Amino acid sequence: MIRLIVDCFGGDHSPAANVEGAVLALNDKKTFPDLSLILTGDEAQIRAELDRLGCKDDRIEIVHAPEVVDCNEKPTDAIRLKRESSMMKAISMLRTDDSVAGMVSTGSTGALVAAATLRVGRLRGVIRPAFCPILPSMKGGVVGISDSGANVECTPAHLQQFAVMSSLYLQSVYGVKSPRVGLLNVGVEEEKGDDLRKESYALLKDTPSVNFCGNMEARDLLGGDFDLVVCDVFCGNVLIKSTEGACLEMLKMIKRDISSSLLSKIGALFLYKMFMKEKNFMNYQNYGGSVLLGTKKVIVKGHGSSKATAVKKCIEQAYRMELGNLNRSIEEELCKLPSAKL
Amino acid sequence: MIRLIVDCFGGDHSPAANVEGAVLALNDKKTFPDLSLILTGDEAQIRAELDRLGCKDDRIEIVHAPEVVDCNEKPTDAIRLKRESSMMKAISMLRTDDSVAGMVSTGSTGALVAAATLRVGRLRGVIRPAFCPILPSMKGGVVGISDSGANVECTPAHLQQFAVMSSLYLQSVYGVKSPRVGLLNVGVEEEKGDDLRKESYALLKDTPSVNFCGNMEARDLLGGDFDLVVCDVFCGNVLIKSTEGACLEMLKMIKRDISSSLLSKIGALFLYKMFMKEKNFMNYQNYGGSVLLGTKKVIVKGHGSSKATAVKKCIEQAYRMELGNLNRSIEEELCKLPSAKL
Repeated sequence: MIRLIVDCFGGDHSPAANVEGAVLALNDKKTFPDLSLILTGDEAQIRAELDRLGCKDDRIEIVHAPEVVDCNEKPTDAIRLKRESSMMKAISMLRTDDSVAGMVSTGSTGALVAAATLRVGRLRGVIRPAFCPILPSMKGGVVGISDSGANVECTPAHLQQFAVMSSLYLQSVYGVKSPRVGLLNVGVEEEKGDDLRKESYALLKDTPSVNFCGNMEARDLLGGDFDLVVCDVFCGNVLIKSTEGACLEMLKMIKRDISSSLLSKIGALFLYKMFMKEKNFMNYQNYGGSVLLGTKKVIVKGHGSSKATAVKKCIEQAYRMELGNLNRSIEEELCKLPSAKL
Repeated sequence: MIRLIVDCFGGDHSPAANVEGAVLALNDKKTFPDLSLILTGDEAQIRAELDRLGCKDDRIEIVHAPEVVDCNEKPTDAIRLKRESSMMKAISMLRTDDSVAGMVSTGSTGALVAAATLRVGRLRGVIRPAFCPILPSMKGGVVGISDSGANVECTPAHLQQFAVMSSLYLQSVYGVKSPRVGLLNVGVEEEKGDDLRKESYALLKDTPSVNFCGNMEARDLLGGDFDLVVCDVFCGNVLIKSTEGACLEMLKMIKRDISSSLLSKIGALFLYKMFMKEKNFMNYQNYGGSVLLGTKKVIVKGHGSSKATAVKKCIEQAYRMELGNLNRSIEEELCKLPSAKL
């Protein structure tokens, strides 16, 4: 039995989407043959949602938590002052209850990452957990970006660990054999970039557990030639947001242009299926959340605006991470590196 | 009379596109009432192109340069070993001939920036020249990204100078009144980011000649709320390449989907005008080149694959920079800053 927590508050559509996502997962016994869920948050509201869905599944347990971590709250304040929140109750269960494998949240990223790192703790060997979101690749499949979470300085040893952990994640959850890893840089030649890139290049080249394919440029993110992009957190954030931003702006422009004339509206009818596909392509609801790699329990952060299917997808990621024993592999591989923090 | 050099070699379509771009500019007397051009490169080839175009304009002068700077060449090698190249001959004329206002090149960016900085020299007050490309904004108009050129470390004083110089550039060449400047960061709140961002935020807030509108996220690049993005060179490079990459991949996907069925091909005919517009939207041929701001002469770097209209656009940028006395304004404003290198 894999026991996971779903933090039911903090997202734009919570608790409805989070509770429904949980129920969808429990009902899908093919994907989740062996799942039980703990829902944290206001018990009355969660019960009301379960009633609405007609769900009486005894694999659901509710842990009452009257408070909610606000998205604009300082992470340290959230940890200190919101102990009775749905997120911090979940974190504290991860810390104390060995039978709970991990959690899914659509709440504040900063608070979740900070609380998971400080309260749940790091796996043996891990210098710092890495936040790894997933984008679709144009050739089908996905591309991971590690790290792209918080705003901290990175060293070559961090980047090396990000590469190792995220490669294992892509293998374990997405079945990518020997993920092709690219180092985000301003050019593809080995000597490109600042000291961080040059030293990271040298380290990655000599990491047996990483299929390092050299430097890559930001324009090649979606092209399908890399399964994983390794970068410092600041650049990772810029990379993922500019890519999402550009795709969304393109779609907006197309939408505006279609409504501008009758002729183009007629044309758009013929292309309806295609436009739906393009729209779905950049829709994170279909790709699940970003995982935090390197903490003692499995943590998946869904987008703040996740709907039920996206929450279910996040549960699937957490389930597969646990099923594949990802954390044990991470510990094993990281302990082989000279940078391992033991 | 404004005298500019067109480096006719080094681009994918050179010398044909560069020579034709020069001729297009000279023929457009409305935009360029007072222009004369010096073309550098292999004289026989340039003459052959001029003959092909039937151009006998006496405002063209050819300066023979038998060598070409290769795109993969180390900038320092190019400067040292390729003195007889079309680019280095142009640089040396900028250095020695006061009557020449600036140059346009579609050759190696690294070699051009290095040679311009080292040989032509910085304006009074400038710590380091900034490379400022332009992207289209979704609300019409443009957005500049400064700096996004070379791979060097940046300080808050650099970012402040980038903001001042690029604001003046957008005013002078694109007529943007009081450009809205955003600092690229991982979130919009004032306290976000690493030390570089925090210190730059404080500096920019206190720079009277900059209309600083706070932090901005990468996803808001094309939305039209900012006229200028200020960032370190590494992130600038990531920002512009991921945006271009995402837009191009979207277009590729649409193209592939359209060809996949007869129905969608019919639909696409109705939407032909729209698709042409979207395709043109991200086509840098329409937006001219990236300018190098802060050197003693005007330098415009066109994209390596520039065709004739793009080269003409680069000439227009250089012409307007000179016409608007941009360099004098830059010197005046930068000398007011405490960071001014006098």
